[in-house]
Amino acid sequence: MAGNSFGKIFTITSYGESHGIGIGVVIDGCPSGLEIDQDFIKQELDRRKPGQSDITTSRNEDDSFEIQSGILNGISIGAPISFFVKNKDSKSKDYSSLTYTYRPSHADFTYEKKYGIRDINGGGRSSARETVARVIAGAVAKLILKKYNIHITAYVSSISDIKCTKSYEELDMSTTESNKVRCPDKETSDKMILAIENAKDAGDSLGGIITCVVKNTPIGLGEPVYDRIEADLAKAMLSINATKGFEIGSGFIGTQMKGSEHNDVFENVDGSIKTKTNFSGGVQGGITNGMDIYFNVAFKPTSTIYKEQDTIDKEGNNVKLKMDGRHDPCVVPRAVPIVEAMCALVLVDHLLRNKLTRI
Amino acid sequence: MAGNSFGKIFTITSYGESHGIGIGVVIDGCPSGLEIDQDFIKQELDRRKPGQSDITTSRNEDDSFEIQSGILNGISIGAPISFFVKNKDSKSKDYSSLTYTYRPSHADFTYEKKYGIRDINGGGRSSARETVARVIAGAVAKLILKKYNIHITAYVSSISDIKCTKSYEELDMSTTESNKVRCPDKETSDKMILAIENAKDAGDSLGGIITCVVKNTPIGLGEPVYDRIEADLAKAMLSINATKGFEIGSGFIGTQMKGSEHNDVFENVDGSIKTKTNFSGGVQGGITNGMDIYFNVAFKPTSTIYKEQDTIDKEGNNVKLKMDGRHDPCVVPRAVPIVEAMCALVLVDHLLRNKLTRI
Amino acid sequence: MAGNSFGKIFTITSYGESHGIGIGVVIDGCPSGLEIDQDFIKQELDRRKPGQSDITTSRNEDDSFEIQSGILNGISIGAPISFFVKNKDSKSKDYSSLTYTYRPSHADFTYEKKYGIRDINGGGRSSARETVARVIAGAVAKLILKKYNIHITAYVSSISDIKCTKSYEELDMSTTESNKVRCPDKETSDKMILAIENAKDAGDSLGGIITCVVKNTPIGLGEPVYDRIEADLAKAMLSINATKGFEIGSGFIGTQMKGSEHNDVFENVDGSIKTKTNFSGGVQGGITNGMDIYFNVAFKPTSTIYKEQDTIDKEGNNVKLKMDGRHDPCVVPRAVPIVEAMCALVLVDHLLRNKLTRI
Amino acid sequence: MAGNSFGKIFTITSYGESHGIGIGVVIDGCPSGLEIDQDFIKQELDRRKPGQSDITTSRNEDDSFEIQSGILNGISIGAPISFFVKNKDSKSKDYSSLTYTYRPSHADFTYEKKYGIRDINGGGRSSARETVARVIAGAVAKLILKKYNIHITAYVSSISDIKCTKSYEELDMSTTESNKVRCPDKETSDKMILAIENAKDAGDSLGGIITCVVKNTPIGLGEPVYDRIEADLAKAMLSINATKGFEIGSGFIGTQMKGSEHNDVFENVDGSIKTKTNFSGGVQGGITNGMDIYFNVAFKPTSTIYKEQDTIDKEGNNVKLKMDGRHDPCVVPRAVPIVEAMCALVLVDHLLRNKLTRI
Repeated sequence: MAGNSFGKIFTITSYGESHGIGIGVVIDGCPSGLEIDQDFIKQELDRRKPGQSDITTSRNEDDSFEIQSGILNGISIGAPISFFVKNKDSKSKDYSSLTYTYRPSHADFTYEKKYGIRDINGGGRSSARETVARVIAGAVAKLILKKYNIHITAYVSSISDIKCTKSYEELDMSTTESNKVRCPDKETSDKMILAIENAKDAGDSLGGIITCVVKNTPIGLGEPVYDRIEADLAKAMLSINATKGFEIGSGFIGTQMKGSEHNDVFENVDGSIKTKTNFSGGVQGGITNGMDIYFNVAFKPTSTIYKEQDTIDKEGNNVKLKMDGRHDPCVVPRAVPIVEAMCALVLVDHLLRNKLTRI
Repeated sequence: MAGNSFGKIFTITSYGESHGIGIGVVIDGCPSGLEIDQDFIKQELDRRKPGQSDITTSRNEDDSFEIQSGILNGISIGAPISFFVKNKDSKSKDYSSLTYTYRPSHADFTYEKKYGIRDINGGGRSSARETVARVIAGAVAKLILKKYNIHITAYVSSISDIKCTKSYEELDMSTTESNKVRCPDKETSDKMILAIENAKDAGDSLGGIITCVVKNTPIGLGEPVYDRIEADLAKAMLSINATKGFEIGSGFIGTQMKGSEHNDVFENVDGSIKTKTNFSGGVQGGITNGMDIYFNVAFKPTSTIYKEQDTIDKEGNNVKLKMDGRHDPCVVPRAVPIVEAMCALVLVDHLLRNKLTRI
Repeated sequence: MAGNSFGKIFTITSYGESHGIGIGVVIDGCPSGLEIDQDFIKQELDRRKPGQSDITTSRNEDDSFEIQSGILNGISIGAPISFFVKNKDSKSKDYSSLTYTYRPSHADFTYEKKYGIRDINGGGRSSARETVARVIAGAVAKLILKKYNIHITAYVSSISDIKCTKSYEELDMSTTESNKVRCPDKETSDKMILAIENAKDAGDSLGGIITCVVKNTPIGLGEPVYDRIEADLAKAMLSINATKGFEIGSGFIGTQMKGSEHNDVFENVDGSIKTKTNFSGGVQGGITNGMDIYFNVAFKPTSTIYKEQDTIDKEGNNVKLKMDGRHDPCVVPRAVPIVEAMCALVLVDHLLRNKLTRI
Repeated sequence: MAGNSFGKIFTITSYGESHGIGIGVVIDGCPSGLEIDQDFIKQELDRRKPGQSDITTSRNEDDSFEIQSGILNGISIGAPISFFVKNKDSKSKDYSSLTYTYRPSHADFTYEKKYGIRDINGGGRSSARETVARVIAGAVAKLILKKYNIHITAYVSSISDIKCTKSYEELDMSTTESNKVRCPDKETSDKMILAIENAKDAGDSLGGIITCVVKNTPIGLGEPVYDRIEADLAKAMLSINATKGFEIGSGFIGTQMKGSEHNDVFENVDGSIKTKTNFSGGVQGGITNGMDIYFNVAFKPTSTIYKEQDTIDKEGNNVKLKMDGRHDPCVVPRAVPIVEAMCALVLVDHLLRNKLTRI
């Protein structure tokens, strides 16, 4: 009820603050008999890790996890699987100047007003550090999806006003990880990197858009009415820090099409039912139709910047705030595995729910 | 678990098919002592009703509701409040030709594959008829919000490529209901109406965008991490038929701003803490900061059109489909009260949840 | 959250007050493809019905139900299945004298204090009339259990101090319905009926115990730790009006045995694993082991009696209360189908949950 | 959905196996601003600890907990509070002989059949070691209850056939902890201890009954219909290992009373409404009436005994099983704090839910 759990069947509960002793996640509802590939989980966690390149924060988080329960000889036993990742490089002193001022567009003000208490040490639960829990749980979810040959891949499709104009079908998404901005189009990624470096030099920050694609989705995932697959994806994405928008299939631009253009006409392709176009984004009536799911997620520019800003302190006085510390000038590249993880959690949840559909 | 309930504290469960005997909704968790203003509920339902004007479907639904429980002398008693609305003008014969063909971009195919059974009578649960339940429950939610002076208002901000270029702050939203397309800008609404009429004449359909604004939001609504207020709003909106996108505050366009431009600087306005700008859309760290919440919802063009379309039948044969019947050439104007209703449900749920925050 | 729903996968939501227009129930999560045998549901409802014999209330409830959704050509379509039963013979005037007095051991006082409002018309949600919803939903659950050959049967094993001393294995439970007290032991049932008649004549009431047996339970139902099958059965039973206790297997008397006597030793019976004894009541570690589940439910004597009683009125004055109206001198026989229904709901929920156990 | 969480508002999730690295619990929904008294939590945990006396297991569990999140300067911040207790003395070799045999009345057989995998190391999740999580979370719940002056106390009221014949009102419950069997009646406790010692010498085990009393319960806790306070208490108690029964107020024996004897007549005591008797056990219509709540919980004799037993192995062969290791001949005394903890969790959950009742 306090918002720290996600998923109805495959349920994760995350805990831990950014500058406390660590971040943990408990997965309840993972079926027994699943081989838990720890190398894969580590690999996913490394994709999220700060300090991967010069365009990310220099904060050095050693995200090695400990498995605390639920696995025997590498296999899930049907019990809760829990992971804990220690915070090693928290340097809580960095935040001492924030005790009495509210950082613009951060959660300082709202948390303090809501809870009557403020954990000034680095954002507490509002920090992106919490996404460690999501990436780990998402990696376990991906292990289940692999068994069904379902494949999720996300990439950066725009940074600021630099857009990758190719559709995902025109891109070789296997090259996404080859550059530090995670855009699979070389020409665009070079521009994006330059823009981020410039923003960094200026003490400023940038936003962007991540596109996520699901291939080999089975037909029938999603519950009609309130738990449509796109509704649960939208919630999952908007639950990620710094996100401001979600669109699936034709999205906002599709609102400008006519029905006769937008309708995805069915066709029989060698005995298998497909649609000629896929403006629906793989979902009709809230339920997957077997075509690719694809969606975009908007990330605002990071609110932590190094330019001096106006703000007020706790007593309501006008003050100047100049932050230092170690933060990303652009979180979008590092958010790619987080988007994938949240997508995986939604799909696994609905994959399991779908087992309940027929007598 | 089958997706027919919404909300954690103020929980609604909807039931009924579009061409069955009616649509019902049960509200569990409405506090006792609330005056249930039936005239207001009827008024909200009338805003959703088909046949309001020549640009909506001519299907004549008489949406008078019966209260079945939970109210004594006009006051909620703390028991489930249930409403039932009979379907009077269902004409299920209209759909007989659909038995063996899948309408493009409808839920026919996905429902049949998911459930192994297809309720061909007008879409069953996938029909927008189900939104009767949402509007009624949303009206009850609005009655609670009124007690806190929280005000929700939505309007059509674009139809196809016709956009209302003014921000909500520049508009007189009290005029929204004065025209049949529900856009509070006279010049724009005239163009929108014309465009819809043209689409109707061509047997085609249009999409559009609805903007929703919440005023007088209290500080502190929303749970951090997974149940952020914007995450729950996103889910609520993407659970509405025909929606393809959601954005809050600066949304997708905000991804092109710099952090130094986008950050909402705090200021002390006569002892009250405000932000100078509101790119956040009233939410920081998933929790309301007391500024206006505003968001956009994208609606695809209605999939029911009267042009002949290619499709396949149940046996996989290529066939032509030409629909008749009575449907909206553009559902966006009628979706305005639905967007407001879903927004009200989310806010009430979080208003009640917030009672649990402090010891 | 307000307690009107039951079950996690196969979820029922009940609504309606005893002297309102009727009682409804919505089942969400019933798999598609189930044949809904309405005659069977009617038959179950008739077993609960008042006025079945001279030892039950003479209130004549015509419990014919209307199906409002979820069924097409007699088959469940995966949508919510909803039922509504009108109240026909409510005679709310009977209760007019109760406006200002609290009936001893009724819910009048607690409801009024909790909600600030009192529905004096016959108990509102606290009335046993609500169990109509349970019996209908339980009948649908039984239709699912039949497909797995799981059989639930309950009977009255004691009324006041008259006990059926035979175990369920010594009884022919198929004769339960042959007498009006629903005890399958002729000699005992005669005594019970006499005792109830005497209590009725004296304007008094009696309690008793119902024993419920589940045969052909599959192995593996129940989730360990908090959602053990016996925990969910206990909750289900204690949620029935007038219940004061639950015991499974050896129960309270088993606390006097030694471990060496109580342990159920495994044996191989023609290749199938059984236990020699069944003090566990078919459950070990919260999970069914394939042996019969059996449990007892204690019902207090009905609180509605016709002897004059002391009580207080709303202003706290000492007053005398003498009720008239039509109530059972002993609700236990009519509670038999309710116990079975709640048991069926728990089993179906766990049967479906168990589909999620293994990868 | 997999049964490792408990509570709707104040929700605990437990994880960890008996012979893994430790047991953890995450509390989500604890209000902010609560002072977390770690000494009190430790004290409660010590009451559960094995090795407290010669009548409990000699297994030496050092149950020191680590707080991993949710607390700042000793105060809850509204974030999940998580605790971890390492397993220090697990000696998994003790269980090596159990690989191929099913211990009678243990969960070995049912877990293996359900999950397809068996964690033979000491019972995994089915071990009473999991109750560490309950006692810690229950201690936090008690800290909330203290603020409302609500007091829970439990004691052993019978061991085998030795019963404490006094009611809780005749006992000085403050003396419960003064003897190792936790029965506040000196004469009875001496007999109980002797009986347990004799059982231990014989390699056998005993069961018993725990009585739990709640004083100063506020009026209005509990939700009618399915989430009655006694229903949730019943579930909580039957979720504890080795429990076979629950009864509240007059319980099973009350079924032999007449309505005129059993009804709790209201009276005005100095302006406060009380009942003359309390056969209801403080609950009417599922909602607390302000009188003491009291209930009994039945515990079967421990299934781990040291006498040789018949059983079968995994291949279905008849084998003899003789266990050694370190187990309690009677778990009942050590279950006292567990019963209190589960009771506290139920009460806090309903205390918080009750904040949602009125507008």
